[in-house]
This record gives sequence, C-alpha cells and structure tokens, in this order.
Amino acid sequence: MEDPAPRSGSSSFVWLVGASQLVGLASVVLTGVWMGHYRGGFAWDGSAQEFNLHPLCMVLGLVFLQGDAILVYRIFRNEPKRNVKMLHGIIHLLALILSIIGFVAVFDFHRTAKIPNMYSLHSWCGMATLILFCVQWVMGLMFFLFPVASSWLRAAYLPVHVFCGLVLLVMAIGSCLLGITEKLLFSIMPTYSAFVSEGVLANTLGILLICFGVLLGFLITREEYRRPPNPEEEALSVHFKTLTEGGSPSSP
Amino acid sequence: MEDPAPRSGSSSFVWLVGASQLVGLASVVLTGVWMGHYRGGFAWDGSAQEFNLHPLCMVLGLVFLQGDAILVYRIFRNEPKRNVKMLHGIIHLLALILSIIGFVAVFDFHRTAKIPNMYSLHSWCGMATLILFCVQWVMGLMFFLFPVASSWLRAAYLPVHVFCGLVLLVMAIGSCLLGITEKLLFSIMPTYSAFVSEGVLANTLGILLICFGVLLGFLITREEYRRPPNPEEEALSVHFKTLTEGGSPSSP
Repeated sequence: MEDPAPRSGSSSFVWLVGASQLVGLASVVLTGVWMGHYRGGFAWDGSAQEFNLHPLCMVLGLVFLQGDAILVYRIFRNEPKRNVKMLHGIIHLLALILSIIGFVAVFDFHRTAKIPNMYSLHSWCGMATLILFCVQWVMGLMFFLFPVASSWLRAAYLPVHVFCGLVLLVMAIGSCLLGITEKLLFSIMPTYSAFVSEGVLANTLGILLICFGVLLGFLITREEYRRPPNPEEEALSVHFKTLTEGGSPSSP
Repeated sequence: MEDPAPRSGSSSFVWLVGASQLVGLASVVLTGVWMGHYRGGFAWDGSAQEFNLHPLCMVLGLVFLQGDAILVYRIFRNEPKRNVKMLHGIIHLLALILSIIGFVAVFDFHRTAKIPNMYSLHSWCGMATLILFCVQWVMGLMFFLFPVASSWLRAAYLPVHVFCGLVLLVMAIGSCLLGITEKLLFSIMPTYSAFVSEGVLANTLGILLICFGVLLGFLITREEYRRPPNPEEEALSVHFKTLTEGGSPSSP
C-alpha cells in the first residue's frame, strides 16, 4: 500500500496542528514583545537586558520547540520512523541548547546584580524541569537512537519515555507561568492591579501557553492521531500500543 | 468468573495509589500548617484569616478531592460501574462545594480590604479552572448519570470528558502553584531569598502538588490499570477503550 487511505479524524488533525503552531508562535512573539518593548530589550552584559533573554529562551526552547519535537511523531506518522526519531532528537537538542542559554542568562544576571539563586518555587520547578529534560534526552538517545539497550529494555522504557515527555512539557509550561507571575510582581506590583497593558499582555501570554499545552496534550494522546501499525518497522523496533497494553513487543 | 485473576502491574498499582494519597494528604496538611501557623489561622470575618481558607479549600477541594474523584475509576475497577460513577460524581460535588467556599473567601477578603479582583494570572487561571470544572461536572451529570444524551452522544463525549478531567486537574495544580508564588511575594518578599522557613515550606508544598499530579497522571493513563472489559456493562453503557480508539460502542 503506497497510498494508504486517510485515517479518521485527519481533517480535525490539520486544524488542531495549525492552531497549536499559531498559539505557540504567538507565545514566542508575545514574550519577545514583553521583554523587548516593556523591559528594555536584550543584551549579554549581566544587566537586566541579559535577564530578558531568559523568558524568551525558555518559551522558545523548553515550551515551543519541546512541544514540536513531540508533535513530529504525529505530523510525520506516515514517514519512516528512523527519520522521525532523528528529527525528534535534533529538535530536542535545539530546545536543550536554548534552555541552557536561558539558564546561563539568569544566573549571570543574578551574579552581577548580587541576587541569590534558587530560593523561589519558580527556580525549583525550572531547575527540576531542566535536569529531568537533560536526563530524558540522554536516555532517549541511548535507548532509541543508539542500540545500547536490549529490545526488552527499550520496550519497557518506551511508555515511561512518552509519559515523562508529556510531564516535562507540562512542567515547562508551569515553570513559565510561575516565572511570569514572579517577573510581574517584581516589576509592576504597584500597578499590576490597575490592569496596566504590561500585566494584561503577560497574563495573556500565560493563557496562550496553557492553550498550547492543552492542544499538544490532545494531539499526543488521541488514539486516531497515532502512528499506524507497520509490521516491517515492528520487526526492527517495538510498537507503541503493544507496550502501553503491557504486552511484549511483537519481535525481539 | 467470580474471582478474576489479578491483572499485570497490580502490586505497583497499590504502592502508587498509596504514594499518591500520602503526597496528597501531605499537601493538605502543609497548606493547613502554612496558613494556620505562619499566616495567623482561620476565620470568616472578611479578614486575612478568611483569606487563609482560600488556599486550604482549593488544595483540599480542587486538587486532592478532584484527583481522588478521578482515581476511583482505577481503585474500584472491579466494582459495578454504576456505583463507581455515583462515587465519582459525589466526590466531585464535594470538591465543587469546597472550591466555591474557597472562592467566596478570597472575594470576601478582597471586598473588605478593598483589593481589586481578577487582575493576576493566578486569578485568571483559577477562575477559568473553576468555571470549566462546573461545566465539566454538569456535562458529566447529564451525559453519564442521567440518561439525557443518546448513546451516540455519550460515546462521542466520553474521551473528551476524560481528557478534560485530566486537564482540569493539571490546571488546578498550576493555579495553586501560581497562588503559592503570589502569596509568598505579597507576604515575605524581603526575606524569601534568605530561605526563611515559610518560603521553604510553601515551595515544598508546590513540589508535593506536582508529585501528586504526576502520580495521578501515571495511574490514570496506564493501560494496565484501566477497568477490564465487561460485556454485560457494555450492553448498557459504553466502554472506554473502544471509544478512545475511535470506534463505536459495542452496543447502542
């Protein structure tokens, strides 16, 4: 079958993917506008302008790119799995690099301004998310791109990897929301309650990030958007559904 | 079969449910200690002590009880479905009542202290969560407890109801984390960065709430913890797995 019949729910799939990309990009743009227009722009000199790179890198890397790295398994569900795996790993690597730049920016700013690190709930959640993201990326690389683990181990780890991926995306979004609240209360506490435009813009950014997470969550968890079974691939790898149902892979 | 064989993963299931309850109860206790010991206790007189009921009601109602209302479908997966549905609805009703008390407490405190309402990201997320929670509860009641909808409509709505339930739990936890950050920055901003005990306690509460969400998410989404198929029930109702796979119920 070179031209398989389209699976159910394909038309809604296209619209939902489109909506997720629109909302995701709008989040990145809004973060740029917030930091660029309201908070004085960007620099790399230990100043508040260096801090401004932190929200931009986190929303772009740890939310938008991480979300899209997961989504490639649904968008390219009829393409060869090996290529999709590579793309998944590469986008995650970009997300990781951007996240690390974002982390360096805030620590550098804190060092210059003599602000203590790691005392807030935002910092605890953000650091936990980044560390777990690194672990998840290295584990994914070892288990699924390089044949370090046995088939049995890969089969056992796959559903955990999938679950942890979604948890990490939710944690990244949650950390961003905490960061938005922290930044607003540090910067505009006296005027925030008067519905000033900066506050409304940042709140809207928070709502967009939630919408991005909900759309991604829906697209990832719906059965009809999953990769269709492919016996040839299953002979080489392990199939998703078999695993989540607690069975063993169809081929070792 | 009066005594069906235990399904795979049953021993881990017991430990994970136990851990979720321990973490959930610890969150409620920590909220009580934070508000009771550090923030002056509880009252119903428009004072800051009335505000203190808000976090307690939200963590107990919208997080712990909402989570457990979802979990009953896994804990009692071998009990008659009708009874489990009733329990699911009743616990959600309790969660809803507590949440409304929590909302009234904060609005009443704001009115007395002349603090504006609904300007922060926490208030936007919290209000959205409560409104969607009410909609979800009423829809669930109409679709699944009273026979208002046709079998076809129930079949179409079930996976949406399940997905929205998990989204609402995550949104409730996210709103709590935003509330924790807001409360700490309003109350102890000058000392928060010195790792004072109140800040560490509240941060720990945030981490426990995340752990509760992760445990619940894992328990709810694992295939082997789902309700086993029951042909008799399926003749009267609709079965979960059939729906999530995009099929039609086995019996109308």
